[in-house]
Amino acid sequence: MRAVDVILKKRAGGELDREELAALINGYVAGSIPEYQVSAWLMAVFFKGMTPAETALLTELMLNSGKRMDLSGLEGPFIDKHSTGGVGDKVSLVLAPLAAACGVKVPMMSGRALGHTGGTLDKLESIPGYRTGLSEAEFREGIRKDGFAMTGQTAEIVPADKKLYALRDVTGTVESIPLITASILSKKVAEGADCLVFDVKSGPGAFMKTVADAERLARSLVDTGRAMGKRIIGVITDMSEPLGTSVGNFFEIEETLDCLEGRGPADLMEVTLRLTAWMLVAGGRAKGIDEALLLCEKALAGGRPRELFLANVKTQGGDVEKMLALRGKFRSSHSFELRAPEAGFIASIDAWKIGIASVHLGVGRNTAADSVSPDVGLIFARKSGEKVAKGDLVATVFGKDQASLAAARPLVQDSLTIAKEAPPRPSLVIKEILS
Amino acid sequence: MRAVDVILKKRAGGELDREELAALINGYVAGSIPEYQVSAWLMAVFFKGMTPAETALLTELMLNSGKRMDLSGLEGPFIDKHSTGGVGDKVSLVLAPLAAACGVKVPMMSGRALGHTGGTLDKLESIPGYRTGLSEAEFREGIRKDGFAMTGQTAEIVPADKKLYALRDVTGTVESIPLITASILSKKVAEGADCLVFDVKSGPGAFMKTVADAERLARSLVDTGRAMGKRIIGVITDMSEPLGTSVGNFFEIEETLDCLEGRGPADLMEVTLRLTAWMLVAGGRAKGIDEALLLCEKALAGGRPRELFLANVKTQGGDVEKMLALRGKFRSSHSFELRAPEAGFIASIDAWKIGIASVHLGVGRNTAADSVSPDVGLIFARKSGEKVAKGDLVATVFGKDQASLAAARPLVQDSLTIAKEAPPRPSLVIKEILS
Repeated sequence: MRAVDVILKKRAGGELDREELAALINGYVAGSIPEYQVSAWLMAVFFKGMTPAETALLTELMLNSGKRMDLSGLEGPFIDKHSTGGVGDKVSLVLAPLAAACGVKVPMMSGRALGHTGGTLDKLESIPGYRTGLSEAEFREGIRKDGFAMTGQTAEIVPADKKLYALRDVTGTVESIPLITASILSKKVAEGADCLVFDVKSGPGAFMKTVADAERLARSLVDTGRAMGKRIIGVITDMSEPLGTSVGNFFEIEETLDCLEGRGPADLMEVTLRLTAWMLVAGGRAKGIDEALLLCEKALAGGRPRELFLANVKTQGGDVEKMLALRGKFRSSHSFELRAPEAGFIASIDAWKIGIASVHLGVGRNTAADSVSPDVGLIFARKSGEKVAKGDLVATVFGKDQASLAAARPLVQDSLTIAKEAPPRPSLVIKEILS
Repeated sequence: MRAVDVILKKRAGGELDREELAALINGYVAGSIPEYQVSAWLMAVFFKGMTPAETALLTELMLNSGKRMDLSGLEGPFIDKHSTGGVGDKVSLVLAPLAAACGVKVPMMSGRALGHTGGTLDKLESIPGYRTGLSEAEFREGIRKDGFAMTGQTAEIVPADKKLYALRDVTGTVESIPLITASILSKKVAEGADCLVFDVKSGPGAFMKTVADAERLARSLVDTGRAMGKRIIGVITDMSEPLGTSVGNFFEIEETLDCLEGRGPADLMEVTLRLTAWMLVAGGRAKGIDEALLLCEKALAGGRPRELFLANVKTQGGDVEKMLALRGKFRSSHSFELRAPEAGFIASIDAWKIGIASVHLGVGRNTAADSVSPDVGLIFARKSGEKVAKGDLVATVFGKDQASLAAARPLVQDSLTIAKEAPPRPSLVIKEILS
């Protein structure tokens, strides 16, 4: 089979079969199919798409390019959640111990800050001593002991995705629903989860700017999962405004503790509880979403999720005492305050602008080689819907140095819109796609 | 400027400007833009096209990647004709001396057999001693002395096209009207011609199978030429059946002599005269097509085109005596006859099947490394529209060996359709696009 014929078939809108896709993907990973043929195929996929069956085949081939986490011998059900990335999105940190406290096991493999969005691994590593590069044995042991474990993607997991993503990034072929689906799904299936809940973010602070695009991705994840025999639940949530009241690595650990102590902000808790509840439904721990929500509330009130979070910190090498001692104090000495320029109601805080500002502050990275700072970011005193007088504090902004503050300041100021009237406050959970 | 942003702009259907296209093409030729980005751009062009202005810019950039023939000091007008390739298409061999006899100069750079189509250079090299690899000085001298010269494309002419074409060939991006336009036009403009007449073939034996596709290419050539300040005339001609009565390298030299002696087959002469006449119009040697056609007829009758052809053979190292002595005798000893399987009228002779058969016989190449034979091919005794009795000779088929005859036989037999009624005989000149 000639690679050019496979490209031509896709160019004409055809559905590639297992043999054709295998020749391309396995050949690419092995180095026998050159990058210039793969990139031409990627661009043809951008224009012509892939069927769910084809996307499932691609996912499977990518998955088989590396090893999978072996969770055999452990007691399930294994359920994970994946977010397409947002600003202030610390849902995973609260959800994992909460779901574990409710009786599902969470084998969570997370990523680092990417573009304007934060990274779960970067947040966890702001805890002194915390290690995210677990061996498979450590990962299994964490899940067994604490009900969940948090690790990064190793080089052995889906190497095809690393090669393909790097190529997509430089050939203008990132924004393709089936390619995004296969990239996400191959990594999550490699973790060993039985079922997956996807938080597909939509809005200015998300990669999918519109609900329609987010729905296309959620639908593709659900359909492709079905073609692979995996149950997927897709939840579309709003990412117009940063989630919760903090954006920053250690700042979000602090907010996680607040949530686990029953003092989490309403928007963050709404999304976290809904996603956790779907995990319980998927794992057979509750018959329906309402029962699952009640279970979550009850577990939180009982304090077990907080205990599991602290246990996990200890298991993964973190210093629990130090973490608790730093709470409320781990702040860069470079800061400024964002104050309301006029009286009224906060109408919106643009998540994308805050995300870009946070990269300047030192929360994220401009290039993969950059290091991130634990003690920088934004802490919001007020959020959308709240009434402000002129000069009221809206947020305190911490940067790694004065230059980073100067770069962030106009974005932070621009992110804020004040209105005369109180804005409508729709639910952050926009749509749920169950199958 | 990042190459990925240029790709993204084209992916979105945008028109690239000079700076963007230059970054891509010059970077590719210089080796600083990798093939995987160029192939992604090529696929985006396949789907999104290019405007005539953009195609003109690409053509110019490709042109500037190498040197142009310098015809300064010679007296013009310099007019050339280019065909998109057909079977039995020896028009160039008759047209060049005919146009030269009528007072235009023809700087002709031709190609070799490609796929199922024959190559002018291969035909000329079947003349003992004939050289097609002329230096620029020899090319100029030939044009000065004989009014025309025939050479191949040197490595210095449009190197960007060689790189791009090789990449398109393996990435499924050959069939794009603007890319085909830039490839053809850059090479022809590099010859130094003032005006160009394009014979865009349409039908089973052509690369453009439908008149609509041929018209799109002809229109693109004319429009792109105008954007570059070059006058282009596009003539769409039929390539359902081999042109003339012979297919083969030396066989077509023999038929060229027949044409120049006033005994050319009607179909071949119709196309040749029309194309030559447009060259005379473009070169200001006639006021309109009818006057130009009369000039051509008169020139042919006067014998000057034949003299110029023989002069060119001599100038380019060919042995005129030997050529004339071989006429009618230079035949491989391996042959078979195609005879009418039933009585009726020849309804069609499929040019594509004959073209593929001729490659088997040794007229063309399966790979670039293959050599071609001078004394093989097909000589038709009868063509479409002629009445046949069962068993009448239709063609004699010569191959380089028995195996090549065996491979060609089913294709040759299949190419022939006999009908009860005489088929309609429409003009071979389907459409003319002047500007």
